[in-house]
Amino acid sequence: MNGATSAEAMRRLMEARSVAVVGASERPDASAGFVMRNLLAHGYAGAVHPVHPTARNVYGRKAVPRLAALDVVPDAVVAGVAAERVLDVIDEAGGLGIKAAVVLASGFAEIGEEGRARQAELARLARGHAMALCGPNCLGIYVPRTGLALYSSRISPMRRGAVAIVSHSGAGAIALGNTGRFGISHLVSVGNGAVTDMPDYLRYLAGLEDVRAIGLIIEQIRDPRSFADAMARVHATGKAVLALHVGRSVRGMVATAAHTGALATSSALISAYFRDTGIIEVHTMDELIETAVLLSGKVATACAGGGVAAIGVSGGGLAHMSDVAENVGIAMPPLTEETRGALRKLLPRYVTPGNPLDMTGIAFSEPGRYRKALEVVAQDPAISLIAAVQDVPKGLDEGGAEEYGGIAEAIAGFAVNADMPVVFLSNLSAGPHRRIRSILEAADVPMVFGTRAGLLAIKRCLTRPQPRSVEPPQPLDRQERWVERLKQGGPLGEREAKAFLRGHGMQIALERPAATRAEAIAAAIDIGFPVVMKIDSSDLTHKTEIGGVRLDIRDARAAGESFDIIMETVSRGAPRAVLRGVLVEQMIVDGTEALVGLARHEPFGLAVLVGVGGVLVEVIGETALSLPPIDIAGAKTLIGATKLDTLLGAYRGRAVGDRNALAEVVVQVSRIALCYGDLIEAVDLNPVKVLARGEGVRVLDALIVPRARRS
Amino acid sequence: MNGATSAEAMRRLMEARSVAVVGASERPDASAGFVMRNLLAHGYAGAVHPVHPTARNVYGRKAVPRLAALDVVPDAVVAGVAAERVLDVIDEAGGLGIKAAVVLASGFAEIGEEGRARQAELARLARGHAMALCGPNCLGIYVPRTGLALYSSRISPMRRGAVAIVSHSGAGAIALGNTGRFGISHLVSVGNGAVTDMPDYLRYLAGLEDVRAIGLIIEQIRDPRSFADAMARVHATGKAVLALHVGRSVRGMVATAAHTGALATSSALISAYFRDTGIIEVHTMDELIETAVLLSGKVATACAGGGVAAIGVSGGGLAHMSDVAENVGIAMPPLTEETRGALRKLLPRYVTPGNPLDMTGIAFSEPGRYRKALEVVAQDPAISLIAAVQDVPKGLDEGGAEEYGGIAEAIAGFAVNADMPVVFLSNLSAGPHRRIRSILEAADVPMVFGTRAGLLAIKRCLTRPQPRSVEPPQPLDRQERWVERLKQGGPLGEREAKAFLRGHGMQIALERPAATRAEAIAAAIDIGFPVVMKIDSSDLTHKTEIGGVRLDIRDARAAGESFDIIMETVSRGAPRAVLRGVLVEQMIVDGTEALVGLARHEPFGLAVLVGVGGVLVEVIGETALSLPPIDIAGAKTLIGATKLDTLLGAYRGRAVGDRNALAEVVVQVSRIALCYGDLIEAVDLNPVKVLARGEGVRVLDALIVPRARRS
Repeated sequence: MNGATSAEAMRRLMEARSVAVVGASERPDASAGFVMRNLLAHGYAGAVHPVHPTARNVYGRKAVPRLAALDVVPDAVVAGVAAERVLDVIDEAGGLGIKAAVVLASGFAEIGEEGRARQAELARLARGHAMALCGPNCLGIYVPRTGLALYSSRISPMRRGAVAIVSHSGAGAIALGNTGRFGISHLVSVGNGAVTDMPDYLRYLAGLEDVRAIGLIIEQIRDPRSFADAMARVHATGKAVLALHVGRSVRGMVATAAHTGALATSSALISAYFRDTGIIEVHTMDELIETAVLLSGKVATACAGGGVAAIGVSGGGLAHMSDVAENVGIAMPPLTEETRGALRKLLPRYVTPGNPLDMTGIAFSEPGRYRKALEVVAQDPAISLIAAVQDVPKGLDEGGAEEYGGIAEAIAGFAVNADMPVVFLSNLSAGPHRRIRSILEAADVPMVFGTRAGLLAIKRCLTRPQPRSVEPPQPLDRQERWVERLKQGGPLGEREAKAFLRGHGMQIALERPAATRAEAIAAAIDIGFPVVMKIDSSDLTHKTEIGGVRLDIRDARAAGESFDIIMETVSRGAPRAVLRGVLVEQMIVDGTEALVGLARHEPFGLAVLVGVGGVLVEVIGETALSLPPIDIAGAKTLIGATKLDTLLGAYRGRAVGDRNALAEVVVQVSRIALCYGDLIEAVDLNPVKVLARGEGVRVLDALIVPRARRS
Repeated sequence: MNGATSAEAMRRLMEARSVAVVGASERPDASAGFVMRNLLAHGYAGAVHPVHPTARNVYGRKAVPRLAALDVVPDAVVAGVAAERVLDVIDEAGGLGIKAAVVLASGFAEIGEEGRARQAELARLARGHAMALCGPNCLGIYVPRTGLALYSSRISPMRRGAVAIVSHSGAGAIALGNTGRFGISHLVSVGNGAVTDMPDYLRYLAGLEDVRAIGLIIEQIRDPRSFADAMARVHATGKAVLALHVGRSVRGMVATAAHTGALATSSALISAYFRDTGIIEVHTMDELIETAVLLSGKVATACAGGGVAAIGVSGGGLAHMSDVAENVGIAMPPLTEETRGALRKLLPRYVTPGNPLDMTGIAFSEPGRYRKALEVVAQDPAISLIAAVQDVPKGLDEGGAEEYGGIAEAIAGFAVNADMPVVFLSNLSAGPHRRIRSILEAADVPMVFGTRAGLLAIKRCLTRPQPRSVEPPQPLDRQERWVERLKQGGPLGEREAKAFLRGHGMQIALERPAATRAEAIAAAIDIGFPVVMKIDSSDLTHKTEIGGVRLDIRDARAAGESFDIIMETVSRGAPRAVLRGVLVEQMIVDGTEALVGLARHEPFGLAVLVGVGGVLVEVIGETALSLPPIDIAGAKTLIGATKLDTLLGAYRGRAVGDRNALAEVVVQVSRIALCYGDLIEAVDLNPVKVLARGEGVRVLDALIVPRARRS
């Protein structure tokens, strides 16, 4: 358990007016030495109390031999000592009434068993003393406004501003803090987050007016519920949160027993979780930087949805920008006839009024017309944001850069007065020449660099996510019989799994078990040809591959033969499996095969998966997922995010599929997750046949894997 | 027709030792004024002859009133006059024996009909005089080594080096020339390329030893054959060519009559063309820059295939880099046990030896060990390139940057002596702090900036493409009967198209036409149940959607009913279509549905398409394509690039598909393209049923669209 540090303790930590630095020294490589130097260099106005066993003073500040020797209770303590001594320091500090600490040392959960025990003890102590605690294994905290620089590596002077950085990676925090592209309000290296974790910092930052955007570098989400709760608070304040999740390629998959579940990696789940909690996900440091630039600037609040118009002086540059815009999903609508008419009046005959708008050389000779063109385009009702696309490469000499001065002035002049947001976009990620940059900066024109990262930033600015709101579904009744069965362990094969589903209100295809050849023939006659026959065994999870399924059985003779072939083939292929016989089932020819399932992804618990099912699973290899609860609207969104969207539509003369009925199955499966989540590892309904609209769905095959019992 | 400028004329243009500048003046906005100033500013050592009707001299050079007044024949002439006067200047120059020209003016093909006529006349004149001609509608040529700056916008001093830029976009050329990231050998703004086009410049550059990489910004490939020929020459010299194709989102599709053909955009074709001709395709300016950095440096020749090892001091930064590496398809193999053992000896216990290798803080305190770690990893047989991942953000102050100095020195020290290529990668596209950059530059360590663009550059360096080599297929005999039919126009429906294919040696499913109910029943009995019945009409290209197809007809009664239903439904749906009756066909249940086709994409001609067929076309929506000729190996590569690869494999208990037979169909279709290409607009074989290995394929449906006749 992490998180849930009190608001008061958070304030002590983040707004500490006095700090004790244990281990403070003038040694150049001591972590507490860095803290001392940073506090002095960044003008921290609070009291600094070095604690050192022998030194009389450290960097001119009077030192005391131990915390207890202080005649005041400082707001915060920095434990700049080795891991072995940290527990004593924290316990002593807590005993003195100190409510906030920064623990810099490594040697905790990140080093294995011994460290995990030490970290657990540290958390116990801190909680006992109701302390906020940054770390362990962190670089610490830096607040530029106050100079509170409890940071164990050297901090360069940073531009101040409205972006808070909270990062599991200390080096990542430094990298983002020193880009110079946006101003920093807070810099937090969270470290192991043993006590105070990202949700605590988010809740704290939610309350600060001067923070407009929060950038996260996340290695691990330790407590999804707490995180989502904190995100809801941040969202209520209108601040934007953007996150780069790192280490996704090394994460393992969890639900390996259910064969289709393995297709959904936890990386996809984290993306789904970000989307559902309203976090803006970015995929590179560059995207994080460009998006932070826009979301911390004045553009952030001005633009909401709608299209982008581009203007520039290079046909090639605009064409390239348009290509990438299409690729990342930015709409560049055509200008209205009215706008084009106004541009025609404004511009010479050889300039074609359109979107993108290539102003040609006239922009250099008559920059006033460039500004007027911006004003005309700003009136277009389809346009929500104008991108001024211009490369003014850094390598130009002063004279070369000066040629673009008129264009920059035109953009700046427009931006100062306009309601319409304008963003300067450089196709070169190195950004434009200093001369141009300073003109635009003076007018507070937001600038993004690099076509791809820049356009992704614009897209995120236009489509700010909101936390998902869900109509809570009716809870299922937990049935004792099934609780027992799930606790007992071992997978529920098709027959049992279908009974479970039927017992919870799902439409299952008509089927009958048959232990002998004669029973199989009789069952087939009863159900009516054509039928499907499948091996009935709890020991086999992949029936098709082992020859345990035969389709399209059309008469009694074929039914008898099929029984014999299945039993023989499977006995040979899986000699140890206990075979109960076969299941005889109605053959459903029409319809679309879908997959609906549950897969466990700790620490999120069970996630709901939806995708194309049947034999196409491996070919299409794509599922959408989300965490329960899911309502009908959410289920339809999930379905719409997969190729099922095409398959269920009216295409190639096929009937439109019963999307509502499939959405009901998704909701039902999410209810199963909520009701039996503690007992289930994975659920796999595949295929679920989706019939024509109004005719419902049939679950043709199912597998439920109980959760392994903890020893 | 463009291209095919003689080598001698190309030398006169690109190595001109004397230049006449027509229209030269000291007016600041005159295009020839820019040329004059550039020539003077960049130290051009050749003779410059301003041509001006009245001026006695221009920028201190003696002027003459017209070209004929010169007492020498200069190597090249710059036509710095308006479009209307260009033809006279070029004709006069040609008459005087001048063999090279730069035409700056716009007002040619880019402005419509009138301009196209002018451009055709310009090309005729230039060819008549055997001239090389850059432009029209271009910025011109700049060769830093000689100061030959025939460029109509201001050129800043540029770093000299081994990268040639040839661009349809003048602004793009300037942007790439002035990044400062790599040195420039030549800068060419091609303009309309009316006479001398990219292939000519490529052929010229192929012969120059000091050019190592050529960067192209391409708006249009005007002559694919000439381009491919030029690329073959460049490849023979070991130079790399990289290309950014811009304007792909606005290109239209050509073959609209064949419904599946429309899925392959010409943008995909250009990518296929790049791949087949050995051009390295990039998708952003940033990727072009980073790739050019590597391919013009010493790394380019050192690394060939194999894995990448990463080293750094930030776990988060390395994790992020590894994520993106996986995403772009870079292999980061585990280190061998031997390498890990050696690292264990070298490093403290808390450093885990692996790939990526997080050196932790020890890199700062003991940079010597960082260098030794590089040396150890360099011995690993699975590793072909080491990426040193380090963000040293630009915003750090001198002291902050200085802390990374030891690491930079370690990398530099390693790089100078090592055979193993090492690339410095910054996750920030702004690149590292100047202090670090200068250490690495001094040691000639290649640096790439931005995780995504940087890793894509590394990937392209490891997997340099080669032009495709093709075993030329046996030509088909052109049959007079079919030539006549194709010339006649109007689509060849299923029946005719199948006859065509059969006549050219393809396996077609057994089928019989039937004009009446009785004929249909008789045909079905003859063929043997189950059968398929399809409408037989040349007027319908989408039979399924209109209710013209019925599957799985199992007896005579059903055959009669099906005939009636098809005829009635289709008559109602398409009252004007001429219906010949139905085709009765053997029903082939098993097998995988593929699509093989031809689609016209000018100026490339017919491209061959391969992909998943049948009802999945819209769902999977993916085809691979290539230009004929295609041999069996090439056909298998195409098949392997689509989801057919999975569908034809042993998956979910299905038989392995007959890949060879499908590849034969692809080759056969490419032979049809070569034989009848002038007469065909599109071919669509869909579905082609691929049976189990050894059982071949059956073309179940086909459509051939003749090429519309030119009026």
